[in-house]
Amino acid sequence: MGARSSKRTAPSTRGSAPQRGRVRDKLVYSFGDGGAEGRADMKNTLGGKGANLAEMADLGVPVPPGFTITTDVCTYFRQNGGRYPQALRAQVAEGLKRMESALGRSFGGREKPLLVSVRSGSRASMPGMMDTVLNLGLNESTVEALIAESGSARFGWDCYRRFVQMFGDVVLGLRAGDDESDPFEEIINDRKRERGVDLDTELQAEDLRTLAADFKQLIRQRLGVGFPDDAHEQLWAAIAAVFGSWDNARALTYRRLNRIPDDWGTAVNVQAMVFGNLGDDCATGVAFTRSPSTGEKGLFGEFLVNAQGEDVVAGIRTPQQITRAASIDRAQTAGQDDARRSPSLEEAMPVCFRELAEIARGLEKHYRDMQDLEFTVERGKLWMLQTRNGKRTAAAAVKIAVDMVGERLIDKRTAVLRVAPAQLDQLLHPQIDPAARPPATGKGLPASPGAVSGEVVFSADQAVRAVEQGRRVILVRTETSPEDIHGMNVAQGILTARGGMTSHAAVVARGMGKCCVSGCSELHVDFAAQRARIGEHTIRAGDWITLDGSNGEIYLGTVATTTPELSGDFGRFMKWADGFRTLRVRANADTPHDAEVARTFGAEGIGLCRTEHMFFDGDRIDAVREMILATDRAGRERALAKLLPMQKRDFLEILRTMRDLPVTIRLLDPPLHEFLPAGDDEIRELAEKIGVDARRLAEARDDLAELNPMLGHRGCRLGISYPEIYQMQVRAIGEATCELRREGIAVHPEIMIPLVGLVRELEILRGEALEVLAATAAAYGMKLTAPIGTMIELPRAALIADEIATQAEFFSFGTNDLTQTTFGLSRDDSARFLPAYIKRGVMPQDPFVSIDRAGVGQLVALAVERGRSTRPEIKLGICGEHGGDPDSVMFCHHIGLTYVSCSPYRVPVARLAAAHAALGVHPDS
Amino acid sequence: MGARSSKRTAPSTRGSAPQRGRVRDKLVYSFGDGGAEGRADMKNTLGGKGANLAEMADLGVPVPPGFTITTDVCTYFRQNGGRYPQALRAQVAEGLKRMESALGRSFGGREKPLLVSVRSGSRASMPGMMDTVLNLGLNESTVEALIAESGSARFGWDCYRRFVQMFGDVVLGLRAGDDESDPFEEIINDRKRERGVDLDTELQAEDLRTLAADFKQLIRQRLGVGFPDDAHEQLWAAIAAVFGSWDNARALTYRRLNRIPDDWGTAVNVQAMVFGNLGDDCATGVAFTRSPSTGEKGLFGEFLVNAQGEDVVAGIRTPQQITRAASIDRAQTAGQDDARRSPSLEEAMPVCFRELAEIARGLEKHYRDMQDLEFTVERGKLWMLQTRNGKRTAAAAVKIAVDMVGERLIDKRTAVLRVAPAQLDQLLHPQIDPAARPPATGKGLPASPGAVSGEVVFSADQAVRAVEQGRRVILVRTETSPEDIHGMNVAQGILTARGGMTSHAAVVARGMGKCCVSGCSELHVDFAAQRARIGEHTIRAGDWITLDGSNGEIYLGTVATTTPELSGDFGRFMKWADGFRTLRVRANADTPHDAEVARTFGAEGIGLCRTEHMFFDGDRIDAVREMILATDRAGRERALAKLLPMQKRDFLEILRTMRDLPVTIRLLDPPLHEFLPAGDDEIRELAEKIGVDARRLAEARDDLAELNPMLGHRGCRLGISYPEIYQMQVRAIGEATCELRREGIAVHPEIMIPLVGLVRELEILRGEALEVLAATAAAYGMKLTAPIGTMIELPRAALIADEIATQAEFFSFGTNDLTQTTFGLSRDDSARFLPAYIKRGVMPQDPFVSIDRAGVGQLVALAVERGRSTRPEIKLGICGEHGGDPDSVMFCHHIGLTYVSCSPYRVPVARLAAAHAALGVHPDS
Repeated sequence: MGARSSKRTAPSTRGSAPQRGRVRDKLVYSFGDGGAEGRADMKNTLGGKGANLAEMADLGVPVPPGFTITTDVCTYFRQNGGRYPQALRAQVAEGLKRMESALGRSFGGREKPLLVSVRSGSRASMPGMMDTVLNLGLNESTVEALIAESGSARFGWDCYRRFVQMFGDVVLGLRAGDDESDPFEEIINDRKRERGVDLDTELQAEDLRTLAADFKQLIRQRLGVGFPDDAHEQLWAAIAAVFGSWDNARALTYRRLNRIPDDWGTAVNVQAMVFGNLGDDCATGVAFTRSPSTGEKGLFGEFLVNAQGEDVVAGIRTPQQITRAASIDRAQTAGQDDARRSPSLEEAMPVCFRELAEIARGLEKHYRDMQDLEFTVERGKLWMLQTRNGKRTAAAAVKIAVDMVGERLIDKRTAVLRVAPAQLDQLLHPQIDPAARPPATGKGLPASPGAVSGEVVFSADQAVRAVEQGRRVILVRTETSPEDIHGMNVAQGILTARGGMTSHAAVVARGMGKCCVSGCSELHVDFAAQRARIGEHTIRAGDWITLDGSNGEIYLGTVATTTPELSGDFGRFMKWADGFRTLRVRANADTPHDAEVARTFGAEGIGLCRTEHMFFDGDRIDAVREMILATDRAGRERALAKLLPMQKRDFLEILRTMRDLPVTIRLLDPPLHEFLPAGDDEIRELAEKIGVDARRLAEARDDLAELNPMLGHRGCRLGISYPEIYQMQVRAIGEATCELRREGIAVHPEIMIPLVGLVRELEILRGEALEVLAATAAAYGMKLTAPIGTMIELPRAALIADEIATQAEFFSFGTNDLTQTTFGLSRDDSARFLPAYIKRGVMPQDPFVSIDRAGVGQLVALAVERGRSTRPEIKLGICGEHGGDPDSVMFCHHIGLTYVSCSPYRVPVARLAAAHAALGVHPDS
Repeated sequence: MGARSSKRTAPSTRGSAPQRGRVRDKLVYSFGDGGAEGRADMKNTLGGKGANLAEMADLGVPVPPGFTITTDVCTYFRQNGGRYPQALRAQVAEGLKRMESALGRSFGGREKPLLVSVRSGSRASMPGMMDTVLNLGLNESTVEALIAESGSARFGWDCYRRFVQMFGDVVLGLRAGDDESDPFEEIINDRKRERGVDLDTELQAEDLRTLAADFKQLIRQRLGVGFPDDAHEQLWAAIAAVFGSWDNARALTYRRLNRIPDDWGTAVNVQAMVFGNLGDDCATGVAFTRSPSTGEKGLFGEFLVNAQGEDVVAGIRTPQQITRAASIDRAQTAGQDDARRSPSLEEAMPVCFRELAEIARGLEKHYRDMQDLEFTVERGKLWMLQTRNGKRTAAAAVKIAVDMVGERLIDKRTAVLRVAPAQLDQLLHPQIDPAARPPATGKGLPASPGAVSGEVVFSADQAVRAVEQGRRVILVRTETSPEDIHGMNVAQGILTARGGMTSHAAVVARGMGKCCVSGCSELHVDFAAQRARIGEHTIRAGDWITLDGSNGEIYLGTVATTTPELSGDFGRFMKWADGFRTLRVRANADTPHDAEVARTFGAEGIGLCRTEHMFFDGDRIDAVREMILATDRAGRERALAKLLPMQKRDFLEILRTMRDLPVTIRLLDPPLHEFLPAGDDEIRELAEKIGVDARRLAEARDDLAELNPMLGHRGCRLGISYPEIYQMQVRAIGEATCELRREGIAVHPEIMIPLVGLVRELEILRGEALEVLAATAAAYGMKLTAPIGTMIELPRAALIADEIATQAEFFSFGTNDLTQTTFGLSRDDSARFLPAYIKRGVMPQDPFVSIDRAGVGQLVALAVERGRSTRPEIKLGICGEHGGDPDSVMFCHHIGLTYVSCSPYRVPVARLAAAHAALGVHPDS
């Protein structure tokens, strides 16, 4: 093939950067036959699949020959209304010629025809997002040659009808509309009914030939075009379809969810077909070099005898195991008799198995990462179709990273970067409480770990609607497809009746870190009736079920869950991460329990301890209400005197739990009306209970009601209006601190004043707090200082941060409220249009999930700079939801914050994100 | 006295700037006896009063000799805990010596004692805000000398008891608490009762002597200190009291309201007493060189025979006129018999009158501005106590400015700067409709123009409380005092029973541009009973009354008002202003009527035409509700089709009215729930009317309800969710434009999209609007373009203004909402704490009234800069309340906006403010 020499002699062409308005001269890269023009590091040009095919070929791995059309061509195609650079035709012809000569076949030829696959392949993996055409090159005459060559009319006609069906769908666009069944499948089903058979495999050669003809007629009827018989015409149509599929809705959704730029484009891989479906000495499968679920070292995978690749991924048949050990294990787990279990590849095709194992070892060592392989055995010969770094669960990612450091394959820095921070969340998800575990109602494959409960829904759209109403759902499907992504994205978990551990549902769910049980064969979904059966149990839309994604069990109703024990690997891994990061990580915790959890997860303090939650506890709310209803300061002070010992007790416990670590306590924030019941009935009830006139109570509620409570009488504004409230809180903090310090416990409370917009607010409240602290200290005969700082959660506060810093020893960015005010967007009310905004791409992402860097982030960065300009040593943190979002954490690192604070369960995520940031990772990169 | 030569020989001392940490060497400036050490341009050092006394003395005006202690000493006093610079005592002693030698008197001397007044006097006039002590130097022995000299025991003891009373109040701080009566007045009343007399003047010398003794005993009892008999001790105590009064509550309030910096400090003026109360050849009075009410040229003023100055200002006795003409006129207006009228100064003291008129003419010419003079006649000799630029009504300010240009006293630039923009508002206030004018219930003095109605309140606190509840009030008092400022500030108007045109109520009300009727002698206020009588009519708290401040009439109930006709002077004056300004002024107008008014007032276009107000008109609201209740786009489009012709009709009329001028039309902004009734009863009523199910209607309302509608589904978010709404509106604009242009009328609509926070929002809506415009143009066979721009009313929009400018041909800063979001402050809900914030100085001013420059202004300036960076020619304006606030207008000029837009009645205010800004005036200066 001479590809190798051609590669080495033309480095100047391949090395030059693309220029605006023109594409590189070289548009097509050949591979196979022991060499390749491309390399693994050319992903930007060749896409991941193309680059890896080239690399594999270059390594001597048996790869069916083919060529890759570069992503530059995709860009040109998109920018020029679907036209190609002039040089492309000749280069494609040259590529085909090389394939023909390597295999001794002829594309479109009547003898030994060359059949090809046409596949997309972009820089980033986008599984199942774009279209693929197999068996391309077939027509009425080449199919005869194929039959002659294979000696099997059934094989030939099966290839042909599959090709016509796939080409009709993918290239010509003939597919089922919403709520329609697939028109090709309908024809197949008619045929099966006619022939009185159940399975596709029971159809005969003649049936398949008729199907192909029926398919072509359907296409002519529905689309008004004839089916192209010319192989070259087929090829160019398929190439255009792949480039076009870059901009289809599924691909756009996937890119939006995964923040992949639209202008990357896809490459097109044209590769010789090899057949896993020529008979029982043929197979096709996928394999991982380590378990993508646990990270355990060893070949792991599945295959199907006499099948094409998409049969494995599509999950129509449940596949067999690669290794004998896995096969036995699987049979045991399923309670199957060993005699009845499906044989493994190791047993069925030992030579191929050994070769596969050898190649797998070599590729892992070459790439220094766990590999996800696709292979086909054609008449006993092993062909590798693809290798790529394998997707994996968080547990697997951590174990693989730690193990590979042990194996000296990678260093610790690389290990830390190998685990995506968001993924860790999986490890921290609750698991089914062993004590509470009921008998399982059903069992499927443990496709993605975690334990979740939710209401059953049967479609992605239902899932979205239900979640918009604030419900938690489990998406239950016979199998999932890329069309279901939006529903999977919002569901708590996914349950499917068909498909293996590498099925669409499993792969996507793992990527999303979402619990998934797949391939539960006892499950039968009746979409039209909106119900399903698991064995003898019927579940209806809206019923609650629980999934355990770690063992594949399904339970009716809800089941108690517990926090997972973290492995030693996890601890080791996180310690490495901590070694790299410079950003501190604290937790938001309002109770001693939360504080305890936070410490366990490695929180280095509490960044936000809200005091209002304490106000609701037990019968304290009565004293709170008494305070609110008091008409003068004396009345308020009487009620506050009752609250003081209770608040002090809270602070004693939390500070004791967090000994040696800082605890930022935020003084009362919400508007007072939040503490009064809203409804008239509750008002009457409360009036009776606390012995006040119901009318007076209702009046008080009405007086306090606000049109826009978010922008109302809350935060430090309450502190200014009713100084005695904050004074009580500061006294409780001061007394708790003195008493603990007297016991010899080192406690570090920090007092945080919320919603400051004016420097005078802080000046006044800080002064009052210092007075109370001084008085408290005097009463205990001790010295007592505590840093006093403020939330920066209003745009104005950010804008005048230099002034505010004169009065604040620390800032904590309250990015929840800062997002609300900067965007003029109520978190409570935006659900009506925000999802549609994100779906339409009006807004790239939910700004309450990941910090809006252009707006809110700009204000935060500005406040950091200005705050430091007047107080260089000021401590700067962030509290609120963004503190646990990896992208936001990285942003916080890069603008120089001291710490982030997040919910206890997100602490490890934040720690790892901080390490990534310190190692130079930027958000969105 | 040699002051003149001393002044000329020591320029180096007087000219040097003050240095931090030390004061200038010269702390005391003498004046009088035909010369002075100070000058008029030394206001910063000597205060306004001191500088003008020096200037007057220098001009040869007969001024009682005295000296001024500089404001530097006040600053030193405040910074050093009430201590003085060391050099002060010697310089004060020197000043006293000069006074003694000028008058041949001795301070504290047993013969020909020198009595002095001690008065404050700061850079800016703060009428009545600080304390004054008169007759200082009296004690049991000097009073005898005074009696000997004056030949009147009654005069001597009257002086003495007045001095003890005033010193006790002002210096020693013995005054009435809240709801207490004055303890000195109680003693006087007891004495009068005892003697069976009604008036102070009926008390005899012996009574007054006893009063003085009783006062001193009261002081000893209540304060535990003896009354100081030593004149020097009295003097230093009074000086300290004056310096201390700079920081009393009244002064702080006044400074906050008038934005006078706290660190300016006050000077102290010590001046020889002259007596207007030695008998009937004595008098005291005030005069203006032109009418402060109308601006008419000629001496205008009031005096009292045998009285001290504070008697005129306090309004206890109703004073006499200065000129004969005014006296006759006043009698006629009051329906008084000419024989019974009080004689004028011109008639009673013709020599003094002529001298006063001469001095007045000279001072006005010298200062080139209308002067406000205080004088005293002591035994036939005229003394001038003060001159300053007189406060005046807006009408007077305009007339005086225009007249003085005619008289070549000032140039046009000076004339334009002579009228405060805020003052113009007075001219534009409604007047009583002549056709509707009922018979007056009572009549007082026309103290400050305008016509207002409101509910009666009898105290400042009641006024504040009522206004906080959203009520409009008239403050009705026997007389007002500086303690009433906060109530006057919020009231619609002020009515007093006593006091002349120069009384506290009148002066303050004119300064505030607030309607005031003073000195209504038929009025009797019974505060305790919360009612008043005007003649035979009783008015109670909460009753509505109407005041006409232009003629002094009072009406029960409300009376119709009309817009004032503006004088030719006004037109001329505004033309001059327009000649200076560069900032354009537009109006906010939603109706053809408003547009008409706006044009009349000189608006150069409409900067904000809200379209939602049109949605409420007549039965349109039914179509609007039908649109809201539609469940799909088709239903909405049907309803919108009904609205289209109505909206088009509105636009036709407004655009026609504003021909040749730009009209910025804002597309729908408020959340849809604002168009549905809120209450269940109204829902039922509406359901019946439009024939839908009441429950469905209530559900729709509940679905649309928002927790924070300010941050909800509104503005362009509606445009994104329901594109058909904006499309209908744009089509209506387009059709109206085409039809008018076809008629040959030049109309210039501009389409404004509200609440943009993301550039994609604008991009999408702009694209849709352009499509609709193109389609409309095609239908009319015309070309049609209209600038499309956006409101900048969210912090995020300001922050990314560079990006937004790529999609916007103009920005209009919606500073109302921008203030709400930047501050996190709901305009609707902040009334609960904002007044207290401003009162406590937490916030310097209401940010909804005058733009918050540090926060909101910073964002606006930043958006201006960024917007211009991507689109240098972008048109930039402001709409909303700030567009009519002079300070905000000046701010807009200085940051380089193209125009401001305000309510039609504020247009002249904005025009003049823009001229001031162009002439270099800055806000707060």
